[in-house]
Amino acid sequence: MHSANKGIQRIGHKSGLPLMPAVASMSTLPKFAKTPKPPYYAVIFSSQRTEGDNGYAQMAERMVELASQQPGFLGVESVRDTDGFGITVSFWGSVKAIAAWKANLEHLAAQEMGKQKWYEHYELRVAKVERAYAKP
Amino acid sequence: MHSANKGIQRIGHKSGLPLMPAVASMSTLPKFAKTPKPPYYAVIFSSQRTEGDNGYAQMAERMVELASQQPGFLGVESVRDTDGFGITVSFWGSVKAIAAWKANLEHLAAQEMGKQKWYEHYELRVAKVERAYAKP
Repeated sequence: MHSANKGIQRIGHKSGLPLMPAVASMSTLPKFAKTPKPPYYAVIFSSQRTEGDNGYAQMAERMVELASQQPGFLGVESVRDTDGFGITVSFWGSVKAIAAWKANLEHLAAQEMGKQKWYEHYELRVAKVERAYAKP
Repeated sequence: MHSANKGIQRIGHKSGLPLMPAVASMSTLPKFAKTPKPPYYAVIFSSQRTEGDNGYAQMAERMVELASQQPGFLGVESVRDTDGFGITVSFWGSVKAIAAWKANLEHLAAQEMGKQKWYEHYELRVAKVERAYAKP
């Protein structure tokens, strides 16, 4: 459950590599993002998938992995129903962090594939989270 | 599809009643909310349902109907997967509109039921949408 997963774990200290996020996919992330106290930013991405996978699932996993390694990444929550309609909300520390992620070269390639193949339609909204509550 | 549904329809002119929104449920709303140019507000509600319906589905439909009748309501996008994890984003014209909806008596009763019965956990974030894009 969400409370059992402490979020992003870090590896690398035994190999001598710098500490790196070890998040590999949505399936290893908690469902609920452990965001800090506001203010911070949310990117709300609503999308309708086209028919067929066409390489989408693999790229989606890779984009979560890549996003979680970006400076300012705070977490992500994502859900898609059986009709292919989904909402993914990623959380960021600043507008600058969002802009850098948008301009990431591997992400740019994925964005282009999204427009051309994977999404029938999408809406993307950048919003500043001002208040937050959770179930007590 | 989203482009075929023109959003909230209004009835009542034949009955002599004031014009009222006729939105009855999520199923009659477009998947994508037709929001105006920013700025406007988003309420991002992420939730994990408990097991069993326990009156949830009927209340969820009623809350969408009721929300869509509130001043300042701009639209809603909602998705839940087969594991019971869902994200609902409702859009509002102002913080004041959100506060009024939060304080609606029928909504308050539903919120209490949500805490007690329907949600294992939830996170609610109020955010100001500053920029928006859509698939061209």
